[in-house]
Amino acid sequence: MALIKKSVTGMKDILPEEMFIRDYLINIIKKTYGSFGFTSIETPAMEHIENLLSKQGGDNEKLIFKILKRGEKLKLENIKDENDLVDAGLRYDLTLPLARYYSNNQANLPNPFKALQIGNVYRADRPQKGRFRQFTQCDIDILGEASNLAEIELILATTKALSEIAKGKHFSVRINDRRILMAMALYAGYDEDNIGNVFIILDKMDKIGMDGVKKELTELDGEEKCSKYLSLFEGLKDNTEAVLSLKDKLKGFIEDGVLDSLCEIMDTVLEVNTNDFSLVFDPTLVRGMGYYTGTIFEVSMEGFSGSVAGGGRYDKMIGRFTGNDTPACGFSIGFERIITILLDAGFKIPDESRKIAFLYEKNIDGNVLKDILKEAASLREDGNIVLVSKMNKNKKFQKEGLEKQGYTEFKEFYREALK
Amino acid sequence: MALIKKSVTGMKDILPEEMFIRDYLINIIKKTYGSFGFTSIETPAMEHIENLLSKQGGDNEKLIFKILKRGEKLKLENIKDENDLVDAGLRYDLTLPLARYYSNNQANLPNPFKALQIGNVYRADRPQKGRFRQFTQCDIDILGEASNLAEIELILATTKALSEIAKGKHFSVRINDRRILMAMALYAGYDEDNIGNVFIILDKMDKIGMDGVKKELTELDGEEKCSKYLSLFEGLKDNTEAVLSLKDKLKGFIEDGVLDSLCEIMDTVLEVNTNDFSLVFDPTLVRGMGYYTGTIFEVSMEGFSGSVAGGGRYDKMIGRFTGNDTPACGFSIGFERIITILLDAGFKIPDESRKIAFLYEKNIDGNVLKDILKEAASLREDGNIVLVSKMNKNKKFQKEGLEKQGYTEFKEFYREALK
Repeated sequence: MALIKKSVTGMKDILPEEMFIRDYLINIIKKTYGSFGFTSIETPAMEHIENLLSKQGGDNEKLIFKILKRGEKLKLENIKDENDLVDAGLRYDLTLPLARYYSNNQANLPNPFKALQIGNVYRADRPQKGRFRQFTQCDIDILGEASNLAEIELILATTKALSEIAKGKHFSVRINDRRILMAMALYAGYDEDNIGNVFIILDKMDKIGMDGVKKELTELDGEEKCSKYLSLFEGLKDNTEAVLSLKDKLKGFIEDGVLDSLCEIMDTVLEVNTNDFSLVFDPTLVRGMGYYTGTIFEVSMEGFSGSVAGGGRYDKMIGRFTGNDTPACGFSIGFERIITILLDAGFKIPDESRKIAFLYEKNIDGNVLKDILKEAASLREDGNIVLVSKMNKNKKFQKEGLEKQGYTEFKEFYREALK
Repeated sequence: MALIKKSVTGMKDILPEEMFIRDYLINIIKKTYGSFGFTSIETPAMEHIENLLSKQGGDNEKLIFKILKRGEKLKLENIKDENDLVDAGLRYDLTLPLARYYSNNQANLPNPFKALQIGNVYRADRPQKGRFRQFTQCDIDILGEASNLAEIELILATTKALSEIAKGKHFSVRINDRRILMAMALYAGYDEDNIGNVFIILDKMDKIGMDGVKKELTELDGEEKCSKYLSLFEGLKDNTEAVLSLKDKLKGFIEDGVLDSLCEIMDTVLEVNTNDFSLVFDPTLVRGMGYYTGTIFEVSMEGFSGSVAGGGRYDKMIGRFTGNDTPACGFSIGFERIITILLDAGFKIPDESRKIAFLYEKNIDGNVLKDILKEAASLREDGNIVLVSKMNKNKKFQKEGLEKQGYTEFKEFYREALK
């Protein structure tokens, strides 16, 4: 029986044209983050099922690909439930594996540790356009740095990388703090138990607008709390003065230091930055993951909906492994999102090498082939890309194909060459 | 309960020092193969279980990580055997996924297609020193090229890449052809059914020597065949004359063209090559995988046992997917083997950038921090790597650690700086 040609459901064969762009992106990312002293690491694609199901991954935990236990042949009659079958799964993100990695290798890592991790993650999501079950994430994290230096460098490095990738585009970085979010909800009188639901509604602001949020919040817990809550947002600007203006109202619900700290991050980034982006306070920014404990941020790109990067501080995750909380702050570039944007925009990589195709007629003399290969080798030594290929019957079609691959110079060799 | 710090059994957390070398290697490989017109592709880590179990992978098929079916909750009472649980697994190599990829995307790929694939593969092997359950393979393949150009370019490109990686080392490429192996066994009178076992014994030549092979072959099928078989190897040199000298004896068991063809490959490679390696005919070279149909080759490196690269022609695999055989020839670099060799040898990557560390005293004034960050940004613009970090209490220890990471320049900033 014939084997199956298609890839497994929801997973993508990546063609050469897309791979060029992916490699180009990865090179820029590695170079830019490298210049800030981030070093690459790699964690295994497989992770203990106990770690994957430890409530660090929110809804992603429902999407884990589980791996059948290895060892003596499974005795199905002894199996009561899935736990008897499975001891590992594929990672659904890079953050949980990073926290495990840091906990496992701390003694051999610098302190603070600046990690760059680019790797595939797996989610058994319902396949749809632009959403795949295997996709690349690209994360930078600073572990062991409690001060704002972490946030500042993450934002500077990520905006720098994005500016290099999409030259001439304007970016917008929105920033908030989980503790401000929390304080605003407490100020309005929401019960702590209900605050998760408040955030879920607030998070829909860009989709359903203020009116929609108002309606849903009223349905959730009455008009009074909703009014008091939304009054906080009314007329609130997006600069550091706006952050400081919250001090009076939120007194008792938040430490003053949190608001000052957010201003320090914004001030410093704006003054040091040389790239084209704005940095604004966005009190409606929620970020889905439950593990964030402080600053959160998200980047959007001029002309495209949704975000192209996001992250924040998660000071409690490493403690789940080691028993000792360790400051941690990360930024994830939406690698696949950016690839889609670049592909849709017909992005072309600036060529660095001459691309030359040598085409030779079938059954050419062996000595002529040697000469062709020697000439190709010598051109390659000089940094050129040289493809050696037999001439196809339809040479015009063949050359058109090669032109599409970026070959601009052609040299043809015929059997009669030596005559 | 605390989460699990260790990585899953047999899978490795890769530390920054090793990642530097891995990235360095990958860059050389991509650049060298790129100069020959190979283009990168990526296939999913998951593959249909039917494909994985289709007898293309030899013993590796026993080592497949199987993935639990997704979808409605598994009803264990309805499950009769593993087939009801599993529809996919993790790939154990890159060749089978490549054949599927080519079959699936042929219409959108150049012909012939020169693919470079670097990716992780998974085998549930018994963990032991230097052998991991997730490891990187690095393959180049030429699909759709029936002529020796495929073999010639694969050998030239791979030896070029290896020479770039391990400068100053001498390599030895051994070459043979499955059809010569087969003809030699038939000449000696072995039954076709038994030839697989003959090859398994012959393959042990470097471990058990000629005497060991003789003993085992005699045990397998008597002294007469063994003598006749081994007489073929006696006094056989390792050059093209040796290949041609087999013509008379093997007449009737092999087409003359096979021997001529092997000589053409050897002749051409030796004349075109400019790197330091020898290319020899090795009639005892077997290569484990059953899918090879013609030329096979293996590379060893001066001073190290075992092989650092290997490959061959496998013209029948794509036909398993498409129904039409397609010429295919590949070469796989032993990526992990080379990493181990380089790490053991204390290999240092030639530095290209200045690595500068800025250390500032705790609680430094916010404006001084801004100046520090601006100076760092400006140095980064000039291509330097600049790490900004708070001074630790033990500055000497901190600097020693940074020196180990390659930082050679330090600049310190103190609270009193502005006085």
